[in-house]
Amino acid sequence: MQENIQEIVLSLDELHKLSFNVLVTNGLSVRQSNAMAKVFVAGQRDNCHSHGVWRLIGCVKTLRMGKLRGDAEPTIDDISPSLIKIDACFGFSALAFEVGSQILIEKAKKSGIAALAINNCFHFSALWPEVEAIAAEGVAALAMAPTHSCVAPAGGNKPLFGTNPIAFAWPRPGTLPFVFDMATSAVARGEIELYKRAGKKIPSDWAIDENGQATDDPDRALSGAMLTFGGYKGSALSAMVELLAGPLISDMLSSESLAFDEGVGAAPCHGELIVAFDPTVFGGESSKNNVQRAEALFDGITGQGARLPSQRRFAARQRSLEHGVSISMDLYDELLGLII
Amino acid sequence: MQENIQEIVLSLDELHKLSFNVLVTNGLSVRQSNAMAKVFVAGQRDNCHSHGVWRLIGCVKTLRMGKLRGDAEPTIDDISPSLIKIDACFGFSALAFEVGSQILIEKAKKSGIAALAINNCFHFSALWPEVEAIAAEGVAALAMAPTHSCVAPAGGNKPLFGTNPIAFAWPRPGTLPFVFDMATSAVARGEIELYKRAGKKIPSDWAIDENGQATDDPDRALSGAMLTFGGYKGSALSAMVELLAGPLISDMLSSESLAFDEGVGAAPCHGELIVAFDPTVFGGESSKNNVQRAEALFDGITGQGARLPSQRRFAARQRSLEHGVSISMDLYDELLGLII
Repeated sequence: MQENIQEIVLSLDELHKLSFNVLVTNGLSVRQSNAMAKVFVAGQRDNCHSHGVWRLIGCVKTLRMGKLRGDAEPTIDDISPSLIKIDACFGFSALAFEVGSQILIEKAKKSGIAALAINNCFHFSALWPEVEAIAAEGVAALAMAPTHSCVAPAGGNKPLFGTNPIAFAWPRPGTLPFVFDMATSAVARGEIELYKRAGKKIPSDWAIDENGQATDDPDRALSGAMLTFGGYKGSALSAMVELLAGPLISDMLSSESLAFDEGVGAAPCHGELIVAFDPTVFGGESSKNNVQRAEALFDGITGQGARLPSQRRFAARQRSLEHGVSISMDLYDELLGLII
Repeated sequence: MQENIQEIVLSLDELHKLSFNVLVTNGLSVRQSNAMAKVFVAGQRDNCHSHGVWRLIGCVKTLRMGKLRGDAEPTIDDISPSLIKIDACFGFSALAFEVGSQILIEKAKKSGIAALAINNCFHFSALWPEVEAIAAEGVAALAMAPTHSCVAPAGGNKPLFGTNPIAFAWPRPGTLPFVFDMATSAVARGEIELYKRAGKKIPSDWAIDENGQATDDPDRALSGAMLTFGGYKGSALSAMVELLAGPLISDMLSSESLAFDEGVGAAPCHGELIVAFDPTVFGGESSKNNVQRAEALFDGITGQGARLPSQRRFAARQRSLEHGVSISMDLYDELLGLII
């Protein structure tokens, strides 16, 4: 363990143990703590600070709010050869995903396409660890979830949609998958929170204030409304996320999730939809050729100097696996202070 | 039938007969002609000129190129309880969709989620008529297709992606569905073609010229590369469309489809993926409540003065059903001239 005045370097194992201890000593079950710690360490490992271990602070806050059930054990409802629902029973999403994803993958490998709906989960992690985990089994995945109302629909001026992320992964033989995970808002809400923590102004096309005017003040943005990416097209996609990962699966819209929170500022509680596509079942005899087709697409992107999404993240992952991760001493001390 | 110097008003029946005659006299089978005429009339009816009857000109061009099989009868490959493939056998997509969609809907109503892959089809129509037809049966649908390479990936400067549309429909009781159909390019290619026909300049953020520079010239845009909507996020979605409606279903990427065309300028030949979600199977006992949840979302959008997608189209539809549609005499004469 190296140390200097401002940062501390930890191995991924050390970071996992720290994260686990923060969670378990604050009343989260061992199974849930393990699942959540994995997700936050993955975020930190990939240099996604907004989804890294600083989220443990919010996690503990959520645990202390009393709405989340720290001892929840997910239950399985096997609906059809291509549909499974997991009730997270008001625990965090990570364990529910671990339980459900294995069944989802099995179903996709038989039926070609399958869906996993996770209900009643507190969601506080990125979606890319989930779609990547499915792609690691050779299956493509599309995931989406609402959050808390904070984004105005195109042409409107009041928060309605959440940041409503969409994530997708496509498996690639012998290398990391093609993956993206994007908020349908102009940026992730966590980005604005990081600007706020850093005392920095935000770009003026990210959000509007409470009066519907453009703002560069992160506080006013957080109390006003964020904007969707790509204007009315991003807004349409955000509405689709609300519908498919809300009413379709008998779970809350971002507006309901916000109301459920009752202003306590816990992690959002809502559902999630994951659709899995098995290229082998879809492709049949052409599957091998199809793999090459997909690789030709990636070559077409990188061959003209453009980047595949997640490449920066994968490079950071490689560095972290070799050298560990560094976090600020302030954050480290704050996390240690959470262990009770 | 009213008439003036510049425009002619036709009833939807008259327009269907005209469209059918254009197609059938140019060698398209009766079944295919009927299916295609319905799609073009729907576009004209909804005031979507870029997907209306002027596309008959391109259709006939495609028929005369000799690549399309005018007498193709789609064949069915029933893969699993949730997956069906339709081989359009190098006919147009519309008939293949008609054949496949009924089976798709049946599967979704049993399994909750189901997919329809259409292969080897010449695609020359919007996707909204398809997702709307599925929503009319109470089932939500997500559709996507590649086209011909004409869009550069974010950070690149060469055409690789097609305009790669994504369409979605959510059924609403007693009213028209929530529907959007959007190119993942900044605009639909047909829009640029319409600007070209009208001799107008295009906005400078739609495309780059052959040298990778922004351009307002529709000709240079069409020979250069279009841009995706929403920067790298739109680019990521466009890549997803290539993968799911290309390699996943054993069909061509936009670049392969363009190469297959061999420069003759026919309608693009490629595959299409449609995913159907049955809210009743997903929702179970909560289905009724879920319908109200979705309506609350729509109220939240319109209640703040924002619009639902497709509302302009639905208003045009109402007008067309009452008063017929008007098309320019130039176009009318051109269409009559195609009847041989």
